[in-house]
This record gives sequence, structure tokens and C-alpha cells, in this order.
Amino acid sequence: MENQGKKNTSHTTVSRMVEDIIGCKWSLSVIEAVKNDIVRPGEIQRSIEGISTKVLNERFNKMLRYGIMKKTIYPEVPPRVEYKLTEFGKKFVVILNQIDQLQSEIE
Amino acid sequence: MENQGKKNTSHTTVSRMVEDIIGCKWSLSVIEAVKNDIVRPGEIQRSIEGISTKVLNERFNKMLRYGIMKKTIYPEVPPRVEYKLTEFGKKFVVILNQIDQLQSEIE
Repeated sequence: MENQGKKNTSHTTVSRMVEDIIGCKWSLSVIEAVKNDIVRPGEIQRSIEGISTKVLNERFNKMLRYGIMKKTIYPEVPPRVEYKLTEFGKKFVVILNQIDQLQSEIE
Repeated sequence: MENQGKKNTSHTTVSRMVEDIIGCKWSLSVIEAVKNDIVRPGEIQRSIEGISTKVLNERFNKMLRYGIMKKTIYPEVPPRVEYKLTEFGKKFVVILNQIDQLQSEIE
């Protein structure tokens, strides 16, 4: 499970991911929700004003592709789905926060 | 002097600077030299295999524009010029190193 990031992110550089994520308010909102332990798709969608299911799913897929988040499907009826930050994702978020901090210092 | 970064960088976002600098081996080499206390243009150029004066000056100008470095001209004959990291630049370099570290973990 710790290697999920390794597998998924090998074709995109971290700096490009940073640029992509920082430039996308929906991605930032999804990360923010998951950081705040809002982890199920429905509750994530309700926590983000104005996000459509289509856009949310695109962002989830990007998070998985980049190795920032992992998706867990629990065998319940109906199946329960949760998104969590990977170990890579946690480090990635630290960098996002530092860039945000530095950005605020120059504005 | 501490505000130099503030003035110079306000029109480019930090994430775009990160992407730009990480994608440019000459910029990384110039930063590496200055980090290692190689601060005068001539010695910086000699420390970087294959860099032309034109390319070096373009990179210096970018470092100043981004607020990553400051240029000091000492009133000597001939004038002595030194490039140093600004406070912003030092924090920026920390982020570059973290991205580099994270990149190495997924390769």
C-alpha cells in the first residue's frame, strides 16, 4: 500500500503535479476535505460548494493517478468508498502548504 | 533588502517559478553554485561546465526577477559583483529540495 504512490506517479514529475494541483481550485478543495477527515465521495461533494459529480470524479481519478490519494472500497451493502492521502500524498501536501505560505509572503 | 523578493515576484506564482526552475538545468546549477558560496559571476561560470555568458546572464536576470537572488555591486575598481540568495530564495530552495527528494522516492 505504501508503494501505491511509487507505481502511479512515475510518469509525471512532482513539480508538474504541484503546478497542476495548485492551479486547480477543485483539486485543492478535494485535498482539503480529505485532510479534514471528510473521506466519503458523497460527504466530500456536499462539503465543496458547486462541485459536480463529474468534476469530482475527474479529480478523484487524478489523485489516484498521481498517487496522492488511495481509494478503499469496503465490502458492505452498499459498498462504502473512502479516499485517503497516501504517504506520498501527505508529503506532497506539506510542499503545497509551503508554497502557499511563500506565495502569501510575496503578495 | 529583505523585501526585495516581495517586490520582484508579485507577478509570477511560486508554483510556476518552481516548475520553471526545476525544468531548467542551468538555473539549478546557478542556484547550486550560489548555495555553495560561489557568488561572483566569473567563478560561477567556471564552476558550471558548458554554460555561456549569455545563458548565465539570462539566468541571473530570472533569479533577480523572481526575487530568488539579490545582486550586490561593490564600489571597487573594477566593481565586484556578487549574487546571493534572498530570504525568499532560501525558502524557495528548501521547497526545491523537498520536491527533488519526493521525486527520487517515486522513481
